[in-house]
Amino acid sequence: MTLEQIFNYTKQTGYIYQGSEIYGGLSNTWDYGPLGSLLKQNLKNAFIKRFVTETPYNVLVDTSILLNKSVWEASGHLKGFSDPLTECLNCHTRHRADHLITVKNSDGWDNDKLYNYLVDNNIKCPSCGKSKWHEIRQFNLMFKTNQGVIDDVANTVYLRPETAQGIFINFKNIQRTTRRKIPFGVAQIGKSFRNEITPGNFIFRTREFEQMELEFFCKPGTEIEWFDYWYKEMVTFLLDLGLSKENIGSHEHSKEELSHYSNKTIDILYRYPWGFDELWGIASRTDFDLSAHQELSGENFEYLDPETNERYIPYVVEPSLGVERLLLAILKEGIKTETLEDGSTREVLKIIPALAPYKVAVLPLIKNKHQDKANEVYNKLAKHFSCVYDETQNIGRRYRRQDQIGTPYCVTIDHDTLIDGTVTLRERDSMEQKRLTIDKVIKFVSEKIKF
Amino acid sequence: MTLEQIFNYTKQTGYIYQGSEIYGGLSNTWDYGPLGSLLKQNLKNAFIKRFVTETPYNVLVDTSILLNKSVWEASGHLKGFSDPLTECLNCHTRHRADHLITVKNSDGWDNDKLYNYLVDNNIKCPSCGKSKWHEIRQFNLMFKTNQGVIDDVANTVYLRPETAQGIFINFKNIQRTTRRKIPFGVAQIGKSFRNEITPGNFIFRTREFEQMELEFFCKPGTEIEWFDYWYKEMVTFLLDLGLSKENIGSHEHSKEELSHYSNKTIDILYRYPWGFDELWGIASRTDFDLSAHQELSGENFEYLDPETNERYIPYVVEPSLGVERLLLAILKEGIKTETLEDGSTREVLKIIPALAPYKVAVLPLIKNKHQDKANEVYNKLAKHFSCVYDETQNIGRRYRRQDQIGTPYCVTIDHDTLIDGTVTLRERDSMEQKRLTIDKVIKFVSEKIKF
Repeated sequence: MTLEQIFNYTKQTGYIYQGSEIYGGLSNTWDYGPLGSLLKQNLKNAFIKRFVTETPYNVLVDTSILLNKSVWEASGHLKGFSDPLTECLNCHTRHRADHLITVKNSDGWDNDKLYNYLVDNNIKCPSCGKSKWHEIRQFNLMFKTNQGVIDDVANTVYLRPETAQGIFINFKNIQRTTRRKIPFGVAQIGKSFRNEITPGNFIFRTREFEQMELEFFCKPGTEIEWFDYWYKEMVTFLLDLGLSKENIGSHEHSKEELSHYSNKTIDILYRYPWGFDELWGIASRTDFDLSAHQELSGENFEYLDPETNERYIPYVVEPSLGVERLLLAILKEGIKTETLEDGSTREVLKIIPALAPYKVAVLPLIKNKHQDKANEVYNKLAKHFSCVYDETQNIGRRYRRQDQIGTPYCVTIDHDTLIDGTVTLRERDSMEQKRLTIDKVIKFVSEKIKF
Repeated sequence: MTLEQIFNYTKQTGYIYQGSEIYGGLSNTWDYGPLGSLLKQNLKNAFIKRFVTETPYNVLVDTSILLNKSVWEASGHLKGFSDPLTECLNCHTRHRADHLITVKNSDGWDNDKLYNYLVDNNIKCPSCGKSKWHEIRQFNLMFKTNQGVIDDVANTVYLRPETAQGIFINFKNIQRTTRRKIPFGVAQIGKSFRNEITPGNFIFRTREFEQMELEFFCKPGTEIEWFDYWYKEMVTFLLDLGLSKENIGSHEHSKEELSHYSNKTIDILYRYPWGFDELWGIASRTDFDLSAHQELSGENFEYLDPETNERYIPYVVEPSLGVERLLLAILKEGIKTETLEDGSTREVLKIIPALAPYKVAVLPLIKNKHQDKANEVYNKLAKHFSCVYDETQNIGRRYRRQDQIGTPYCVTIDHDTLIDGTVTLRERDSMEQKRLTIDKVIKFVSEKIKF
């Protein structure tokens, strides 16, 4: 499955459209159509179920995209959230210097080292093929805007580049109002924005994206234990969503790659069309963020352990996942072309029923004869789960269409339905059919779509 | 229930915190805590269930916040999405001129008329009490930012001030991929941004907010019929969410108030602490948006009716709701102080179970004795719905705490639980208790929390 094939699939089916397409697009923005928006929704619901509802440890929050700029001063984003930018002196396109170096890992290199590498190794411009590079400068990735009626530097605010800081600055509020004891975690799902120098790979790296983050607060000294706990939970979640073991990899950061505040970081990788790449990171961030906010704000972020009477600033373990990267992995894993027994082929999206945009397609066998009954069935089923109605073309083509978009079950209304109320339930993967009453369909499907 | 009482309630319970509080806040931003984020989530899920899943008419999309700026040229936002701004010449605070005029409706007044009214009626500055006003100019409400590595006017983009345009520009994509026939609708939930001159009334008017919009496409001439259909659905939805009839009002726009493209607009009002104010608007927008995009983009937005072979640009009916305004109405309606039979009082949040952040609180009667069993019960129940665990203080106080945050059911684990597996189920509103097995609790609560 190439990236181009996935791209074409999503466009054709209505999973994803190019952003602002009628106006020639807007660099690397994507709109999620009827199927994509429901899949995204289902992924977020699965995350909330697993990492908030079902666990006794975590709560959810929903904080602002626009924050006081002191937040980004304390977090280090104002100074350090930048990428090394260079320009081709021949064709004047701009590039991320560390992305031009693909043969080795350049994490942690400074601007001089990067520049010297480009020059010494005669690295070519991807646009024009020449090798004449401008010196490297750091380019801050935060989007800037102004809030309020006075256009003044004092009113500059930034679109958050991560949801995490909204959690840290509320640590005391959350702890106070929930009366939680350490350890506990706070999860958040929401949009973040990074003015990437070179976005790309379809929805993999975009300037506007949605994160699902968890900040897990624990006692210093226990962080590696909790790191291992959440790492296991993350891998289990991915497998439960239907990603296969052989497509999941991991990369533990070496000492040189680790951020200065982290004592352990692992990237969970997925085998994307271009190779293994980062899907989900987990970082042990020590007390870096809470301490930084304590210092700048004057707020006391110490936690008083009610059992031992110790005071400490909690350590943080952070699993951080991009919804779009997960969605891309799910599609890459699920889109299959199958050869059937009769030699014909079908395209089928094999995703678990919990993730399927539509759980059931309601199909009248013959439009004019079975339409009314089919509408009645649709209305009944739609009270319980997401359904789609389709009455165009012959039944075989309609089955194929539902296979293609991942609908796990088709319910066909025919002559017998009018007589005995039973319908044909067809299963996507096995293509097996059985006869059931509507009530049994509701029970059967409700059970199957659980996550 | 005053606005201040609601504000204090949300802060104390963990529904809502002030945004960036540790840094002195950021003008009128709010963060949703563990309870508020779940309530928001439940409101959005209720909207999707009612206006997408259950209806045969509508689909969902999720489009970008950052759009090509031609979108805002076509929609008229670049030119016309502004409010009349004036400044007090004495204290130099800035104000929205039409908001200074509270005794009569000034919709549709031009800058001169507004200015003359301020002067002629000696309208006083809310900050200093003087009446010396600067001439009025129009202030555009869109947040501006730059995308890409070159800081250039060509790279200016805007944060969307409404989710609607993301739907209009994708009309053809959506219609093509879903094979829908007119009439059909497209719903979207997402953040929008408006650089309001005078945000205020807590979460009622904020610069960053979340919309739930529906754009319903229909045949010209049928739009008033569909307007009436969706208007009824909207009111039913609000009543089903628990708002009471006497707190819901409506205001139909007069000819003078109507936007130039609208042939009918009604605001559904709610009785907020400061009086009736706009909760949910529904506007018949004719073919204004699609025609404007057709003209600027050159894309053909005509629909070919497969039955009549007529070609037309669809008309649009748009119900547009702010999640935060709905949330504020739900809280205002639900927070009650009740006097009990014994003369004591309790604070209780009477919201329908479907909206409650936690459906069940799991409470061990005596912490040391019933903790293990309670954890076991919690883990079982949490597979089915959102629960909270509480073991601190006596059982009466814990019931009160759950009443206060709106938890509809408490499950208490006691000595008998260890013997026969039954628990006490206590109902929030009636405070009645009954004895049930865990399986029966799951069945009972699952039924009650349906929307």
